[in-house]
Amino acid sequence: MTEQIEQMYLEDLRVGQNFTSGTYVMEAARIKEFAAEFDPQPFHLDERAAQASIFKGLAASGWHTAAVAMRLVVTGGLPFANGLVGLGGEIAWPRPTRPGDILHVESEIVEITPSRSKPHQGIVTVRSTMFNQNGEAVYLLTAKLLVPRRPK
Amino acid sequence: MTEQIEQMYLEDLRVGQNFTSGTYVMEAARIKEFAAEFDPQPFHLDERAAQASIFKGLAASGWHTAAVAMRLVVTGGLPFANGLVGLGGEIAWPRPTRPGDILHVESEIVEITPSRSKPHQGIVTVRSTMFNQNGEAVYLLTAKLLVPRRPK
Repeated sequence: MTEQIEQMYLEDLRVGQNFTSGTYVMEAARIKEFAAEFDPQPFHLDERAAQASIFKGLAASGWHTAAVAMRLVVTGGLPFANGLVGLGGEIAWPRPTRPGDILHVESEIVEITPSRSKPHQGIVTVRSTMFNQNGEAVYLLTAKLLVPRRPK
Repeated sequence: MTEQIEQMYLEDLRVGQNFTSGTYVMEAARIKEFAAEFDPQPFHLDERAAQASIFKGLAASGWHTAAVAMRLVVTGGLPFANGLVGLGGEIAWPRPTRPGDILHVESEIVEITPSRSKPHQGIVTVRSTMFNQNGEAVYLLTAKLLVPRRPK
């Protein structure tokens, strides 16, 4: 079950709710540009070097993959009111992201904790998984997000 | 105690070792560009909107902050042989990163687990903290990295 409701507040959320993002195509040129700026390692920069590496082919930086997942949830994958403000979480990259991969994110609400000290907000734990076009999980993020109550 | 040795293998590492990166200056223009591509939320894109937000001023996307930390450790902050290949970890953003912030990363090895099934490598847990120019922690990452043994 996928829900696509605009501007959800804390009161609108419940454990087990699911959300699905749109898709994003990972391109070789952008993989190399991102890596040159933020993660300049041979297996993210050059096909030949990547072939000889543990990745056995060009792979996106894990932080590029993470940034793409954020883009997917921000642009429709998780319609929380006031945006997505993350406090932190757990992250994993079970498989590399490759040029040409068509990616999407599926998110599920796993915990909702109303704040005692700040009654106008709560912390919502969301487990997001990014899949490639073969249905393989390439990225997992379980994040704690600050979500406001509906203004009175 | 900070060590800056090139190309360290699993045998060269021990729990408690520390490493310090160079510095990176976060610029307002790059904060907005990164956000436009990967995290298009008003508080990362526009000073006026950011003033009215929970951040009370322009703040970098947490994923931009994470990417900058990766750049700092890859370019001298953590000289592991064969590069930095992360399996996953825990992440937190205790404080926003702002335009003009001068950032650096301090890393400490907290656990070393030789692989039983793959004797040529091990998993090293590294706790990295990125500080701003005021000594405030803006980003924490405890990551599990794949590190090879020295080739025989």
